[in-house]
Amino acid sequence: MSPGATIVPTPCVVIDADVLEHNIASMAQVARERGLQLRPHAKTHKIAEIARLQLAAGAVGLTVATIGEAEVFADAGMRDLFIAYPLWVGQAAAHRLTAVADRARLTIGVDSTESAGQLARTLGEDATRIAVRVEVDSGHHRSGVLPEDAVAVAEAARAAGLTVTGVFTFPGHSYGPGQAAPAVDDEQAALSAAVTALGGAGFGELEISGGSTPSALLSSGDTLTELRPGVYVFGDAQQWELGRCRPEDIALTVESTVVSRRRVAGAPGRLILDAGSKILGSDRAAWATGYGRLLDHPEARISALSEHHATVEWPSGAPLPPLGTRLRVVPNHVCLTPNLVDEVQVVRAGVHQGSWTVAARGKNS
Amino acid sequence: MSPGATIVPTPCVVIDADVLEHNIASMAQVARERGLQLRPHAKTHKIAEIARLQLAAGAVGLTVATIGEAEVFADAGMRDLFIAYPLWVGQAAAHRLTAVADRARLTIGVDSTESAGQLARTLGEDATRIAVRVEVDSGHHRSGVLPEDAVAVAEAARAAGLTVTGVFTFPGHSYGPGQAAPAVDDEQAALSAAVTALGGAGFGELEISGGSTPSALLSSGDTLTELRPGVYVFGDAQQWELGRCRPEDIALTVESTVVSRRRVAGAPGRLILDAGSKILGSDRAAWATGYGRLLDHPEARISALSEHHATVEWPSGAPLPPLGTRLRVVPNHVCLTPNLVDEVQVVRAGVHQGSWTVAARGKNS
Repeated sequence: MSPGATIVPTPCVVIDADVLEHNIASMAQVARERGLQLRPHAKTHKIAEIARLQLAAGAVGLTVATIGEAEVFADAGMRDLFIAYPLWVGQAAAHRLTAVADRARLTIGVDSTESAGQLARTLGEDATRIAVRVEVDSGHHRSGVLPEDAVAVAEAARAAGLTVTGVFTFPGHSYGPGQAAPAVDDEQAALSAAVTALGGAGFGELEISGGSTPSALLSSGDTLTELRPGVYVFGDAQQWELGRCRPEDIALTVESTVVSRRRVAGAPGRLILDAGSKILGSDRAAWATGYGRLLDHPEARISALSEHHATVEWPSGAPLPPLGTRLRVVPNHVCLTPNLVDEVQVVRAGVHQGSWTVAARGKNS
Repeated sequence: MSPGATIVPTPCVVIDADVLEHNIASMAQVARERGLQLRPHAKTHKIAEIARLQLAAGAVGLTVATIGEAEVFADAGMRDLFIAYPLWVGQAAAHRLTAVADRARLTIGVDSTESAGQLARTLGEDATRIAVRVEVDSGHHRSGVLPEDAVAVAEAARAAGLTVTGVFTFPGHSYGPGQAAPAVDDEQAALSAAVTALGGAGFGELEISGGSTPSALLSSGDTLTELRPGVYVFGDAQQWELGRCRPEDIALTVESTVVSRRRVAGAPGRLILDAGSKILGSDRAAWATGYGRLLDHPEARISALSEHHATVEWPSGAPLPPLGTRLRVVPNHVCLTPNLVDEVQVVRAGVHQGSWTVAARGKNS
């Protein structure tokens, strides 16, 4: 019987506190050894108790994705928050940002001259209270400007009355087999080019922020001043299959029950678990072996996922677990899972410790 | 400016009440004309106000996926609930089921002799108060027994003291281009075979329940007595691309803001919207054109989705919408979206009417 069994009805999210703390300590040590500041992305967990563990281990502050997340973590006492997102800030959002800035050092992303101007206009006299970092596209091709365009954005921000304190990028193209090392090269090259150009335009002493979980262990302090990994606290099936964590490093699982099964002569058996896309999320990269993994049965494959069903192919010849068996599922992309539940169960050495509220669940805006 | 604009911060879920009511009335009429009872699947919306509209239009009751959903809709006054899921029922679940049965006619799914026995044992003397329907696999190969095995399950249930009132299937393999008609043939064949065998074993007057949204319009009263579509209330990008609804039939959109954009010489332009997988869900069938569609710009493609970013390829040559523009995104699979928010905004003829609570959000167990 797996840790957490019988605590609460399945499917439920279970966090192994020992593994969690080990992961937090390991990444903190990596950052320290390289002379980098660590600003973990809290969108992964959305949980105040975990943020406090990260700060206690030496993180300089938190990264968040939305104003709503910043509000929740400011309410929880966090005093240094970076919204790593190119916000388009209307008047209502400006009021929310200044209310956060009353309680925390607040930095936000900007990736165009227009959004810098819009931000300064809506903030008005509060424009000096919120720092901005220019987002650079290092090859993921999502938001962010090309390195050579960073100066124009920074100059527009400065001219509008904003304080430019840094540059950042998300090397999201590190999420693929063999992609981490070249993505780190791209990250360093893009940030270096942007910082050199910005230095020539009078922007000095910049915070230089990069780092996804797959790339963080390869990033060096030669270019960066700060890392922003998120997934590392829990690990997930993607990191496992990319070789960026081991099964024993996985701190979050979805405990689920075998509700249906069928033996098929000469073919893999089939189990149905009660965990589906409404708790695991349905992210599946082209290179993934399935829709998540079973932590204690790495040979099994989750071949299909509905909202409340995971279809598991069980190896031919191996006995099928009985109906009612609890199995631990590792989500493919763990950032989706805490956001799908109100609370998570915490275990330590297999003993239930209590639960934590997912305080920033659903804070999409 | 699209309906709902400026109501609440983006991304937000907006429901067009006129379209919703039209969809509810249309499916009710289809069922009536074919002599079929309609028991809509409420997992799609999870909203009491929408369930009431479905019942007012003639639905005989609701389908739900979990005990938690049954509890919410029983609390909201619904008096006939079918949990279309092969539950494995422990003692705690049995108590919850009997509490629902105190307030509503309750039916649950069963697909094995073991789960029938387990259900009867844990219900004890309450076993007669909850009806069961045997789940049949009609080709989707998820849960459910083969038609020839339905009698064994029904007999085990009857012997254990349960009342078998019907059979059901989910022809989920109807979700693909050209798949609806053959899936309906499979559905009818599997249910007919099961019902014939059950009749021979003394099980008569059965409720015969099928029907997904893609297949419902093709199902006839010759085999079935009941339809259980869910998605039809809202429509979504999958149904649009399968030709099962038109853009003007889509009642739910995620209103989002253009936060970043880039022109690329000679190539499609690129927009970044603030709606990502944490509000749209990340389901993407192999045949889908992208991760959702823009309702008012069918020529655009959502080529990538992160948690808070949708990457939109904008047609070459067409002017890019300005930063700050609000655009309406149609999720690929709408069942995931209400579950990701606490409330939805309701508009009628473009005028904001108020909001509805997603009462069964997160009720995974």
